[in-house]
Amino acid sequence: MKEDNKIINTRAADNLSNLKMDRRSMLKGTAALGLVLVEDSLGRVTQVARQTLPTPITNATKIQGAPPGILGTRSVFEKPVKLPSFTSARTPLQDLYGTITPADLHFERDHAGVPFIDPSKHDLLIHGMVEKPMSFTLEDIKRFPVFTRICFIECSGNFRTGKTTLTPQEICGLTSQSEWTGVMLSTLFREVGIKSKASWFIAEGGDAALMTRSIPLNKAFDDAMIVYAQNGEAIRPEQGYPLRLLLPGWEGNTQIKWLKRIELTDQPYMTREETSKYTEPIAGGKIRQFSFVMDARSIITFPSYPLQISRGWVEIRGIAWSGRGRIRRVEVSVDAGRSWQEASLQEPILRKAHTAFRYLWHWNGRATLIMSRAIDETGYRQPSYRELVKARGSKGGYHFNPITVWEINGNGEVFLVNDR
Amino acid sequence: MKEDNKIINTRAADNLSNLKMDRRSMLKGTAALGLVLVEDSLGRVTQVARQTLPTPITNATKIQGAPPGILGTRSVFEKPVKLPSFTSARTPLQDLYGTITPADLHFERDHAGVPFIDPSKHDLLIHGMVEKPMSFTLEDIKRFPVFTRICFIECSGNFRTGKTTLTPQEICGLTSQSEWTGVMLSTLFREVGIKSKASWFIAEGGDAALMTRSIPLNKAFDDAMIVYAQNGEAIRPEQGYPLRLLLPGWEGNTQIKWLKRIELTDQPYMTREETSKYTEPIAGGKIRQFSFVMDARSIITFPSYPLQISRGWVEIRGIAWSGRGRIRRVEVSVDAGRSWQEASLQEPILRKAHTAFRYLWHWNGRATLIMSRAIDETGYRQPSYRELVKARGSKGGYHFNPITVWEINGNGEVFLVNDR
Repeated sequence: MKEDNKIINTRAADNLSNLKMDRRSMLKGTAALGLVLVEDSLGRVTQVARQTLPTPITNATKIQGAPPGILGTRSVFEKPVKLPSFTSARTPLQDLYGTITPADLHFERDHAGVPFIDPSKHDLLIHGMVEKPMSFTLEDIKRFPVFTRICFIECSGNFRTGKTTLTPQEICGLTSQSEWTGVMLSTLFREVGIKSKASWFIAEGGDAALMTRSIPLNKAFDDAMIVYAQNGEAIRPEQGYPLRLLLPGWEGNTQIKWLKRIELTDQPYMTREETSKYTEPIAGGKIRQFSFVMDARSIITFPSYPLQISRGWVEIRGIAWSGRGRIRRVEVSVDAGRSWQEASLQEPILRKAHTAFRYLWHWNGRATLIMSRAIDETGYRQPSYRELVKARGSKGGYHFNPITVWEINGNGEVFLVNDR
Repeated sequence: MKEDNKIINTRAADNLSNLKMDRRSMLKGTAALGLVLVEDSLGRVTQVARQTLPTPITNATKIQGAPPGILGTRSVFEKPVKLPSFTSARTPLQDLYGTITPADLHFERDHAGVPFIDPSKHDLLIHGMVEKPMSFTLEDIKRFPVFTRICFIECSGNFRTGKTTLTPQEICGLTSQSEWTGVMLSTLFREVGIKSKASWFIAEGGDAALMTRSIPLNKAFDDAMIVYAQNGEAIRPEQGYPLRLLLPGWEGNTQIKWLKRIELTDQPYMTREETSKYTEPIAGGKIRQFSFVMDARSIITFPSYPLQISRGWVEIRGIAWSGRGRIRRVEVSVDAGRSWQEASLQEPILRKAHTAFRYLWHWNGRATLIMSRAIDETGYRQPSYRELVKARGSKGGYHFNPITVWEINGNGEVFLVNDR
């Protein structure tokens, strides 16, 4: 390939057309690597995909590697995927590292599928109890002062139990974290001028469910945002392209995706999604409604089902988060809850964000139960399943954030423990 | 689709096989959306891709949307791409938001292409002036205490000039930012035991270039890491899969990708990449060598070539970073450098990380030059092109970090200014 290198360099190679002129040479050199160079209708290389090779490479230091491309790829040896159902898809928490969720692995939840939206035809209307109703295009929204923050989103129904053979993805996979970029909702509200009698706003999405929630106005002047970017690029269709309401720390369904209308009001509108759904009966004949904030929670993602550990040093790892602010402390028990030790937290510790924790444990080979619990900056402590059931008067339901308990048996196999 | 919903739900739909059983119904509902459900050899749905529709959708609220999938996708209206040459590919800085670079848009630089590496056959050997030479598998590395940090990587040759029609991607696109996860190098060095006479280590990659650099030992006990994850998942082949040396703030070539060997030594080994390359002559007949740290730099990414702005409010935006620590301040001039104002920085401000800045400007419609300069926590101030040429005694070269100057003409068109 050295002669090809020289030829391309003297043609001032920093553009795609030169790559095209030497495509035959490039293909020759790269065919052995199982590269697929996908051409678009103009004959330009649009994608480089690496496939499993027909014959294994034993020494990569002896083979010219693949050239740079217009988009990177995952290794063929890495296949993280979501677990989809008809209306949701769960993030593979146990296969991830750090705290950022890759955008294509962010959990999904919809009520009538993901709409196909042309951004050039999408407006955000803000009207109702305002001085001046206004309609904003995406370009309008992007002109306002820009803000960025890393925070989690969690579905209020993010709890599953019932079997001992559940992964973190299956138990708790309706939560993910991104770096979000957009405009503060308060900026737009100041633009239209909120009338003094307004105390709520309804937010409506442009999907076939016309997903709509009523939000107390003070959240708009706290940390609510209208976001258009996720992990550095345009928000994904599954997460609300081209615009989403971001309400840091609040239940996912309130953070309306495919946002197209906001109406300022003096009362909640009691939409389907806050009456028939996302409410639940509690002891005493009352109903929990407008339970916005996600309570502090944690889960050990390693070791977890279906892994098997060996006797000796094991670093227990997981994530913790709270809709009320920062995680203050995570405690880990390796003796079935009899005693608790403080885990280390990965800094910087951000408000309303997944926080990685770790605890170095020396397993003696004897069966035990391990678990973690989160304490947030308000002092709230994540409850056990039994404590939660007693407090709620029901098993399961929305905002169900009990401690996840893992059993390690004598063989080092890990299983979920239910109802503890 | 309501009847289909009911059938799937009563079959406890949270798994792919149920999706398959109702695939015909799902395909019928989704065919109108131009979905492509790609099957693997076992007949399972492996990919959901959204294509341009043959007939435009005018009202997405009237059409059932796409179901959740195992991987998300970009909108068809968003096509961010890198700009590849034969040995590098540049990040589209002007098309991004916030500070995280999507993993498939992270810049690339290689010296013999991207190697194809089977992680199960990849070892990291640490030997030389150590008490106990050891070879670590990827699984071994992952057992050590885990750390995560967000930081930038920049190529030392990240500067381009010569035309007025260059984008930020073309001028400065060999820098990107990720959340990196791995183990502290000091932990592995304590594992093998470093002999007291050692003062350097050489790091060698498993690519066909056998890319090798000599690194002073004190960096290993500062913040050096061996990383295996990027933005929450396995590091990408283009960035060094399965293991990379991370030296926060140092020039990109020292952060050896596809890392397979570290040798502890008492002197630099004067490899090709630190003698023939990555060095340069300076005034007085000397050579700049081992210029590790990337100096503070900033660039306005909006407005930039080839955009056009209108009279009125414009929020000037960009990123700033320093290999020495935090950005202390970014200053913006909108009057050709005669005066400077302080820009706002997006918090939290991290060490050795791209930091977003913004400055609200009211353009009066008259031609001018705009520019930004970074000042880091050491007090170092980003120089102008002329200051840098005078100090270095040469135009261009490695670690060339001058202020980027944009011209706004009377029509609001933006062009790059060279040699200022």
